[in-house]
Amino acid sequence: MTTGVFRAMAGIQREFTAGELLGMDSVQGTLLATAEQDADAIFRQYPVDFVVDFSSENSIAYYGRAAARARVGIVSAVSHYPESHLLFLRKLGESTRVLYSPNITLGINFLMVAAQALRRMAPHADVEVVEEHFRDKREVSGTAMRIAESLHLDPVTQVNSIRVGGIVGKHQVIFGFPFQTIRLVHESISRNAFGQGALYAIERLVGLNTGYYTMEQLIREEFSLGHAAA
Amino acid sequence: MTTGVFRAMAGIQREFTAGELLGMDSVQGTLLATAEQDADAIFRQYPVDFVVDFSSENSIAYYGRAAARARVGIVSAVSHYPESHLLFLRKLGESTRVLYSPNITLGINFLMVAAQALRRMAPHADVEVVEEHFRDKREVSGTAMRIAESLHLDPVTQVNSIRVGGIVGKHQVIFGFPFQTIRLVHESISRNAFGQGALYAIERLVGLNTGYYTMEQLIREEFSLGHAAA
Amino acid sequence: MTTGVFRAMAGIQREFTAGELLGMDSVQGTLLATAEQDADAIFRQYPVDFVVDFSSENSIAYYGRAAARARVGIVSAVSHYPESHLLFLRKLGESTRVLYSPNITLGINFLMVAAQALRRMAPHADVEVVEEHFRDKREVSGTAMRIAESLHLDPVTQVNSIRVGGIVGKHQVIFGFPFQTIRLVHESISRNAFGQGALYAIERLVGLNTGYYTMEQLIREEFSLGHAAA
Amino acid sequence: MTTGVFRAMAGIQREFTAGELLGMDSVQGTLLATAEQDADAIFRQYPVDFVVDFSSENSIAYYGRAAARARVGIVSAVSHYPESHLLFLRKLGESTRVLYSPNITLGINFLMVAAQALRRMAPHADVEVVEEHFRDKREVSGTAMRIAESLHLDPVTQVNSIRVGGIVGKHQVIFGFPFQTIRLVHESISRNAFGQGALYAIERLVGLNTGYYTMEQLIREEFSLGHAAA
Repeated sequence: MTTGVFRAMAGIQREFTAGELLGMDSVQGTLLATAEQDADAIFRQYPVDFVVDFSSENSIAYYGRAAARARVGIVSAVSHYPESHLLFLRKLGESTRVLYSPNITLGINFLMVAAQALRRMAPHADVEVVEEHFRDKREVSGTAMRIAESLHLDPVTQVNSIRVGGIVGKHQVIFGFPFQTIRLVHESISRNAFGQGALYAIERLVGLNTGYYTMEQLIREEFSLGHAAA
Repeated sequence: MTTGVFRAMAGIQREFTAGELLGMDSVQGTLLATAEQDADAIFRQYPVDFVVDFSSENSIAYYGRAAARARVGIVSAVSHYPESHLLFLRKLGESTRVLYSPNITLGINFLMVAAQALRRMAPHADVEVVEEHFRDKREVSGTAMRIAESLHLDPVTQVNSIRVGGIVGKHQVIFGFPFQTIRLVHESISRNAFGQGALYAIERLVGLNTGYYTMEQLIREEFSLGHAAA
Repeated sequence: MTTGVFRAMAGIQREFTAGELLGMDSVQGTLLATAEQDADAIFRQYPVDFVVDFSSENSIAYYGRAAARARVGIVSAVSHYPESHLLFLRKLGESTRVLYSPNITLGINFLMVAAQALRRMAPHADVEVVEEHFRDKREVSGTAMRIAESLHLDPVTQVNSIRVGGIVGKHQVIFGFPFQTIRLVHESISRNAFGQGALYAIERLVGLNTGYYTMEQLIREEFSLGHAAA
Repeated sequence: MTTGVFRAMAGIQREFTAGELLGMDSVQGTLLATAEQDADAIFRQYPVDFVVDFSSENSIAYYGRAAARARVGIVSAVSHYPESHLLFLRKLGESTRVLYSPNITLGINFLMVAAQALRRMAPHADVEVVEEHFRDKREVSGTAMRIAESLHLDPVTQVNSIRVGGIVGKHQVIFGFPFQTIRLVHESISRNAFGQGALYAIERLVGLNTGYYTMEQLIREEFSLGHAAA
């Protein structure tokens, strides 16, 4: 398999290069000016297996249909898509493998799936989320909000935000029982974790059929594979 | 269903009563002297659904066959059984529902199953276990050793034991990735957690067939139910 | 020195005895009915060195003046006193050694003094407090509020309260710097820590002059003794 | 005051520049080739207040005497000096302000001083150190060893080393009491913390007399200033 990394950085914060974001020391990449040629031509010239998209919501309009036509897989970690774009991604999933997750790290998705399982097993346990980030992050962490939503928590009273210094990112889900406490903790060391998550997703997608997936779903599959094997 | 709690405390440290261990404010229990009558007679007189055994390895010889004959379920959290007793428990599992787990807390078993799932998903992550207990606990925590074994860790270099003050019990599994860290943490507040685990096991066993189970297995089932439901 | 423990439990939650609260296995104590004799008589009959008061705000009216007259020291950990009582305690401090701290544990006072020192050294660091307690504790922890006040933090935005399960009590002060984070963490295992704090206070007070003290102050002294010795 | 930063990076790992290490976005610095002129000439040409030395043990031989002659302060954070060099540094302290600390972060030194104070206050508490670092750090952290030494701990049984993934550096000192636990935790986000520590040291040294200092000592002073002020 030749895994191509394509357009990874268009539009993303300029201080990262694709290679840095994917946690590789170097990527012998090729920079293409999308204005000069259409995506079909690019996929003919560079027959990659997957597009990894960390850019912004409009890139999918440029390469989406061409990727589907060429059976090139799509792994998108764009922070936010409007509803119409999400429908478009699902539609593309009818022709090629598409995965979308705004937080694509293995760690956060594992945390989310494990927390959901524990919540189901122990519905009477009290649950709170604590997220810690650098001083200048103003809003509540989107990841914390997604965790809270998936656990049916109150986003105001059960999500606690700490804003101090230069903390890269820490998410903690606390389950309180009368006689024991369980904590699931994720600490980000650097944003490279996102790139590693994309690579993990690609490794899994290679063995799956055409379709629309999320990272959470892949992780949940892994849990149940474990069950079958045990 | 009438859930009977029987012989719960025979032989266990004398400072707990059955009710305390099960985390109930009071148990209107009956104390029976086992020397005066055999277990068949007791099960006829007290048609309970489950025996919960926190005592020592030999109690099963007293009540095991009688429980199997009467289709009374067995939930045992005895710290250690010799191999022969484990075979006997499995044998009893052919006639009634039997569950055995030396650490029967929901929390520790959840930790173990979640850690195994993550280990499978991320075989290249580095893993260490840290367990903290009160100063006078001499040996390495049996639970930590069981966790290490289930994750294929080296019990000498990858299990770290802290012995300070009066810590009731804390187990932490740390997964180190290049750009992120995941911590699964279990903190014991009191030994009542064991009793709560036994009650949780009974609730699950009621819906299951005759057989031999472990707490870990029930928890693993719960994870996969989650998958099916998602 | 004969250290007398007197009236320790009058009015406190009934599930503790003085011995338990002080973390002793047994106290060969004497229960006295205060209605039957005045405090002067009691101090004559029982020439103790210190009164330890974990009761409620009005006890000081019963024994305060008598203790001062008899030069019996007073260690009070009553949760709250009205302003008039605090003035009375200070007044008593002119005749005998008086120490008052609503949270008398060594740990919390150490945390407070250390946090104040760090705050002074690093005024630009961001600081937040996280306190975790059992589900049913409704209000924000008084200790957390006292910590916040002593660090000049905003009690609404910089104190975070987690309420889950049966957590006995955990207080964390987080100092965020651009490139490092410092956490000072205190975890309560049981309320016996209060009694240990009272004993610690008495050991220190024995070497001090008549006066009004707080636990924080004794701890702060210890820090500076360290400096002198170094 | 013009604070000069001089020779900051000679010999240190090449991926940092002085500006990065000091946590500044940019340093309008001047690179000088030490082979071409002696240190006296450099100090005449660049009348700086302080030399900050993050290089290796031999640099002090190049600039030490010249700095002392020119009354230029010296702040060294070199990892290790042989005994003879330490004596030389002390000697230089007779003519100018000299500070040496292998770990010059504010955080670690605060941790160390606070832990020593608590150790003194509570000599019967059990103490252990846990240090976590990236997988490839082979030896036990020098900082952890220094902490252990200053607390009179056994470096084998009371220092625990975790080696997983990409953890930048975490040091934890755990004090266990019968009924409470205190944790002092330092987490490194990036090595820039070293540079910040050097700047902090310079700010303090400016107000002090000629002499030989350590970071620990400056921090200890701050604790006692707090006492005087209270």
